[in-house]
Amino acid sequence: MKKIAVFRKEHFNAAHRLHNATLSDAKNAELFGKCNNPNYHGHNYELIVKLTGEVNPETGYVYDTKELSKLLKENILERFDHKNLNLDVPEFKSINPTAENIVLVIYDILRAQIDTRYELNLRLYETERNFVEYPA
Amino acid sequence: MKKIAVFRKEHFNAAHRLHNATLSDAKNAELFGKCNNPNYHGHNYELIVKLTGEVNPETGYVYDTKELSKLLKENILERFDHKNLNLDVPEFKSINPTAENIVLVIYDILRAQIDTRYELNLRLYETERNFVEYPA
Amino acid sequence: MKKIAVFRKEHFNAAHRLHNATLSDAKNAELFGKCNNPNYHGHNYELIVKLTGEVNPETGYVYDTKELSKLLKENILERFDHKNLNLDVPEFKSINPTAENIVLVIYDILRAQIDTRYELNLRLYETERNFVEYPA
Amino acid sequence: MKKIAVFRKEHFNAAHRLHNATLSDAKNAELFGKCNNPNYHGHNYELIVKLTGEVNPETGYVYDTKELSKLLKENILERFDHKNLNLDVPEFKSINPTAENIVLVIYDILRAQIDTRYELNLRLYETERNFVEYPA
Amino acid sequence: MKKIAVFRKEHFNAAHRLHNATLSDAKNAELFGKCNNPNYHGHNYELIVKLTGEVNPETGYVYDTKELSKLLKENILERFDHKNLNLDVPEFKSINPTAENIVLVIYDILRAQIDTRYELNLRLYETERNFVEYPA
Amino acid sequence: MKKIAVFRKEHFNAAHRLHNATLSDAKNAELFGKCNNPNYHGHNYELIVKLTGEVNPETGYVYDTKELSKLLKENILERFDHKNLNLDVPEFKSINPTAENIVLVIYDILRAQIDTRYELNLRLYETERNFVEYPA
Repeated sequence: MKKIAVFRKEHFNAAHRLHNATLSDAKNAELFGKCNNPNYHGHNYELIVKLTGEVNPETGYVYDTKELSKLLKENILERFDHKNLNLDVPEFKSINPTAENIVLVIYDILRAQIDTRYELNLRLYETERNFVEYPA
Repeated sequence: MKKIAVFRKEHFNAAHRLHNATLSDAKNAELFGKCNNPNYHGHNYELIVKLTGEVNPETGYVYDTKELSKLLKENILERFDHKNLNLDVPEFKSINPTAENIVLVIYDILRAQIDTRYELNLRLYETERNFVEYPA
Repeated sequence: MKKIAVFRKEHFNAAHRLHNATLSDAKNAELFGKCNNPNYHGHNYELIVKLTGEVNPETGYVYDTKELSKLLKENILERFDHKNLNLDVPEFKSINPTAENIVLVIYDILRAQIDTRYELNLRLYETERNFVEYPA
Repeated sequence: MKKIAVFRKEHFNAAHRLHNATLSDAKNAELFGKCNNPNYHGHNYELIVKLTGEVNPETGYVYDTKELSKLLKENILERFDHKNLNLDVPEFKSINPTAENIVLVIYDILRAQIDTRYELNLRLYETERNFVEYPA
Repeated sequence: MKKIAVFRKEHFNAAHRLHNATLSDAKNAELFGKCNNPNYHGHNYELIVKLTGEVNPETGYVYDTKELSKLLKENILERFDHKNLNLDVPEFKSINPTAENIVLVIYDILRAQIDTRYELNLRLYETERNFVEYPA
Repeated sequence: MKKIAVFRKEHFNAAHRLHNATLSDAKNAELFGKCNNPNYHGHNYELIVKLTGEVNPETGYVYDTKELSKLLKENILERFDHKNLNLDVPEFKSINPTAENIVLVIYDILRAQIDTRYELNLRLYETERNFVEYPA
C-alpha cells in the first residue's frame, strides 16, 4: 500500500529555564549558561506533526488536517501556549525542559491520542536555528 | 557508493474544490467544510522534488537542477499552474484534489520522466501549515 | 505625541480570475494571460494590517492585536477565505479582482470598522514575489 | 543629498508577563488574557534597526553593519537576551512590557548611542504575526 | 487620486569584494575586514522594486507585474546575475560594490526605464540580516 | 534506546565557479552555463547539521547546540565564510565546488570532529530553491 505523510504546523509561546536540580548552581551555570537564568526566558516554539499512513479513498485524506489541528489545540496548545513550562506543565516539574525533553513529552501525549495505524514523528523549533526531531 | 539527495523547489497557483461525487451534498459539507465551496478556492502550491543518486564525477552533479527545473516546468507547471485542478487537469475528473491525491498524480507524471537510477520523493505545500510527502 | 504602528498578519485562500467584461476575449487574453483562465486559479493571500496611533497608558497597547485579529476574522476572512472572489464576493461582481482592487475593497471595509484616530495601511501578498500596499 | 536607509536584524529570546499593577486582577485578566499568566511566557523577538543617512564616499557605507551589529549586541542583546523583561530589565519595573513599550525603551537606549545625523526607526516582531514600528 | 504601491521581488547571485583602491591595503583591511578578501566572496541578493501610482481602470493594475518582472530580467538580472560585480559590471570599476552603492546603480538603471508618473523605491537584501532602501 | 535528532543552522557567504579543468571551455560552458563565469559568482549558503543520538540524562541534551555552533564556526565558517571556494579552500583545487561536492567536503571535516556515537547528516542550501542532503 502507498504510504503518504501529512504534516501540520502549530506554534506556542512559552517561558522556560534549563536547570538540573540535582546539580550545583555552579554546574548548572556551566552546563546551561544564560539559559539557566532563574527568572526564565522564552521562545516562540514551532511544532510540526507528521502522520504517515494510507489515503482514505472516501476523503482523499490520510488524516484531516482540520481534525489534526483541533487535536493539537486541545492536547498541546492548551497545555503549553502562554505557559511557563517549568512551573505550569506538570511533566517538567522533574524533567529539564530542553527541546529534546519537550518533544519527548509532546510525543507521549500525542501517541496516546492518535490511532496506531499512523506513524507519528515530530519536529520542534526552539528558534529558527535550533530544532529537534523525534523519533529520529 | 555515496548517495546524495538533490532538491528543487517550484511553485504553482491553482484553484480547487474538495468534493466526492459519490457522496451526498450533506456528507461532502461534513467532510470538507469550507473546502467544499462549489465555486472553488485556491492556493499557492510549493512543490519540492528530491532526487537521490550518485555524483557524476564529470559534472559534480547528481542531477543538474537547471535541467530538473526545465523538466518540472514542462511536465508539471504547464499542466497545473494558473489552472482549476478539478476542471482543467484530466487526472482530477474522478479523483478528489486533496494534497495527498495531487502529490500522487505528480509522482506518477515525474516517475515516468526520470531515470529509475534516481530515487524520487516529493513534498507538496498547500499552505505554510499543511503539507504532504510521498513516498513517506 | 509618540506615534507607534501596530501590525497584524492574517491569511486567506481564494480563487479568482482576472477579466474585464467590457473588453473582448482577445484583449482579455492579451492583458491578463494565464490569469484570465475562465475556470479560475487561486492564491494563499497574506494580509498585513497596520494601525498607527498613540499608546494607551492603561494597557500599553496602541490597539489590542487579539481584538484586531477578531475584527479581521469577522470582517475579512469570513467574506474572503475559501471563496471565489469573482463569484462569492459581491464587490467583485463588477470590479476585476487584481491585488490592487482587492486591497482597495478591504480598505473600505476596514476603514468603516476602525476608529478614525488610527491611521490604516494595508499590505496584501498575492504571492511571495507580488504584493501591494494602500495607501502608498 | 541622497538618503539611503540601512537595516540590521538581530534577535533575542525573553520571557515577559503583561500586567498593570494599578489595576485589579480581574481587570488584568480581562485586558491581557493568557498574556497575564503570573508565571510568564516568552518569545523569540526579532528587532530590525533602520538608520537613514548619506553614503560615506570613502567606504560606500551609510553605517557599517558590522559596527551596528556590535552596538546592538552591547546595548540591547546584553540587556534583553535570555532575560525576564519584567524582572531583569529595570525599565520594565514600572512599565508593562508590551511590544509597543519594548520598542520605545529600545529606541531611547539606541537614540542615545547613535549620532543624530542618522534618522533611527525600529521594527520589533513579537511573533511572525504581531509586530510594531516606532517612530511610525 | 488613490495611490497604490506595487512590489515585485527578484533575485540574483553575484560575487563581490569591498575595496577602495585609493586607500592602503591596511586601511582597506581595517574598514572592510573579511569582505575585503581579494579573491571575492558572494551573496544571493534579493531585490524588491516598489512602484507607486494610480490604478488603470481598464486593467485594475498599477503596473503589470509580469511586465515589471520582464523589465527587471532584461535590465538588472542580465547584468548582475551570476556575475562578479567588481569585474563584470562596468559601473563598479570605480565604485565600491557595497549594498548602498549597488542600490544606487540599480536605481539609475531602472529610473531611466520606468515612466516618471510612477514613484520608484528599491529594497536590496545582501543577507537576510543586512539590507538597504533607496530612496529612504 | 530513544534516538532524537538535533539540528543547528549556520550560514556562510562565498564565491565559486563551476568548472572541470579536464574538459574544454566549450564543454564547460555547455555543462555549467552562467555558473561557469570565469570571474566567479556567489551565494549565501545555509548549512543545517543534524546529529542523531540519545539524550544525556544529566543535561537533557543530545548535543549542546552552543557547542555545536562553536564547532561549526571553528571548522566550517572559518574556512568557508567570505571565501572564494575555488581559490581559498584547498579541497576545491581539484574538485568542482558544486553543492554536492561542498556537502561531501563539509561532511568529511565534521565527521572527523564529532564522536561516532552520533549519526551525522547535512543539508546545504545554495539558494532557497536548490539544495542537497548527505548522506541521503
